[in-house]
Amino acid sequence: MKKFLNDPKNFVDEMLEGILAAHPDQLSTAGELRSIVRAQKENKVSLMSGGGSGHLPLFMGYVGDGMLDGCAIGGVFQSPSPEQILKVTKAIDCGKGVLYVYGNYTGDIMNFEMSSELAETDNIKTSHILGADDVASAPKGEENKRRGVAGIFYVFKTAGAAAKEGADLEAVKKVAQKAAANVRTIGVALSPCTIPEIGTPSFNIGEDEMEIGMGIHGEPGIARTKLENADSVVSKMMEQILADMPLKQNDEISVLINGLGATPKEELYIVYRKVNALIKKTGAKVFNVYVGEFATSMEMSGFSISVFKLDGELKTYLAKPARSPFFEQRQL
Amino acid sequence: MKKFLNDPKNFVDEMLEGILAAHPDQLSTAGELRSIVRAQKENKVSLMSGGGSGHLPLFMGYVGDGMLDGCAIGGVFQSPSPEQILKVTKAIDCGKGVLYVYGNYTGDIMNFEMSSELAETDNIKTSHILGADDVASAPKGEENKRRGVAGIFYVFKTAGAAAKEGADLEAVKKVAQKAAANVRTIGVALSPCTIPEIGTPSFNIGEDEMEIGMGIHGEPGIARTKLENADSVVSKMMEQILADMPLKQNDEISVLINGLGATPKEELYIVYRKVNALIKKTGAKVFNVYVGEFATSMEMSGFSISVFKLDGELKTYLAKPARSPFFEQRQL
Repeated sequence: MKKFLNDPKNFVDEMLEGILAAHPDQLSTAGELRSIVRAQKENKVSLMSGGGSGHLPLFMGYVGDGMLDGCAIGGVFQSPSPEQILKVTKAIDCGKGVLYVYGNYTGDIMNFEMSSELAETDNIKTSHILGADDVASAPKGEENKRRGVAGIFYVFKTAGAAAKEGADLEAVKKVAQKAAANVRTIGVALSPCTIPEIGTPSFNIGEDEMEIGMGIHGEPGIARTKLENADSVVSKMMEQILADMPLKQNDEISVLINGLGATPKEELYIVYRKVNALIKKTGAKVFNVYVGEFATSMEMSGFSISVFKLDGELKTYLAKPARSPFFEQRQL
Repeated sequence: MKKFLNDPKNFVDEMLEGILAAHPDQLSTAGELRSIVRAQKENKVSLMSGGGSGHLPLFMGYVGDGMLDGCAIGGVFQSPSPEQILKVTKAIDCGKGVLYVYGNYTGDIMNFEMSSELAETDNIKTSHILGADDVASAPKGEENKRRGVAGIFYVFKTAGAAAKEGADLEAVKKVAQKAAANVRTIGVALSPCTIPEIGTPSFNIGEDEMEIGMGIHGEPGIARTKLENADSVVSKMMEQILADMPLKQNDEISVLINGLGATPKEELYIVYRKVNALIKKTGAKVFNVYVGEFATSMEMSGFSISVFKLDGELKTYLAKPARSPFFEQRQL
């Protein structure tokens, strides 16, 4: 295992210590390291997420101005506990309720629901929105079985902006729901990653192979094939997205090209070049593009493409400024 | 070679096509793909850089508001030509002169100097500042032999802010010179990268080995040893930096933890945790911290630490807002 770490047992906590040491003006804890909150509390509907570690900037990287107010942090690829979630919930609530936005994974659902029940006894209103954007993980018609991957960024961004504008819990939830329904993602992986406490790669893949549709924990994809050239890989991936969410003339979209960890930005832009050409053919218009690492799998090599369909409301919220230690955007 | 690309010959140009397609509101060309300029010209002293591809966000990633006005782009790890540099120079000059800021590499120096001579015949005043921050590449007293690596970001940022404030060429150069003199960097690598047109890794390194002091093109470092734990690696690196630029009580600094390409952000923060502890011992104060990918070597695994010593002027300029497709900062 070729990693910069000390005792693998301390991987998550030492990472958090580093993050808090680096950004004390922006981040703080709700009394314990794995319950991260914004350094400044804001009087509004609160938003939080949570999930396993190993996906930075997911999830805690979006705790910041105009996005999340807090985040509960699990071990690598493990759900945070209900107690951690509850701690964050209590710390960030302003009496206006807390919206939970997290990925569609059994452990996370169970623990966020348990925290909801506990919060209720404290008279804190909570509501849930699941990210389930991975088109490769279940067919059309079974969207509720899909995994949540990079597209959840758009839910954080738009719902976060709505909350900052003063919308109430129901209204923020509606924005989050619409955002979650309007985003589609598909990924491809070339190499695995290694969970520090395990020490061996999470799967094996041939030196000349790729796997389209693989999840961000190495879950099986649609097909493992020989690596093809970038344009051909992108075409296959976009075909899946466009079959699931067709685009037509004058539709407006945002695109996210997300590196899974080890794939250079140079390659991500070669990918976007082809994505852009394929979108042009549909007649849809690209409002803006994000290229970089937004939801990773540590040192996994690969990328994902997310397409986010906009309407007037989502576009307005997407364009609002936001700032966290991992993401910064001025008004678009 | 496991990469997302089409014909390796088109790697750089297709990357540039992708970048221009993604960010048309921010970037444009000076008539050819490899001569990148800002989409909006500003009436001020102009700043430009240039260098080989394969280091994104270096160099062109800093073309943006409050930083660079243009950038000449070479092949992977190759210098741009004098003609490319001249094209950018002519496009960005507003009659107030152009400051060239680039890394201390023979090819780049030769080509930027040639462009300077050609620009002079067009009555464009140019001036040069070299980034030479890599303490591992030559001993103290031979600073002029040092390679330029990630620390050049601080030169772009501060000189860019000075130019935006309306400083004249001499004044902007002075800021750049002071910034370049005040930054020290050291890197460590765990794995090589592959130049697309070559197709094989640039060097070999054992599964249990690391190389401290390696350059961003795989130039040899100080020592190749067995991989040690993160705290121990960081201690050795910080020792080199602090021996070269001692810090004392109440010195104020900025720190940059730069991923070389494949190293996860989780590990970069484990690295910063130790850097922070070691800096505390000196009594110096950390003004701000950047953690992410600022100067890479494609899919190389490793990181570098840069320490930037501030005075009132450098701090003011560092804190100014800036925006490019690869870097965004609001007023600090």
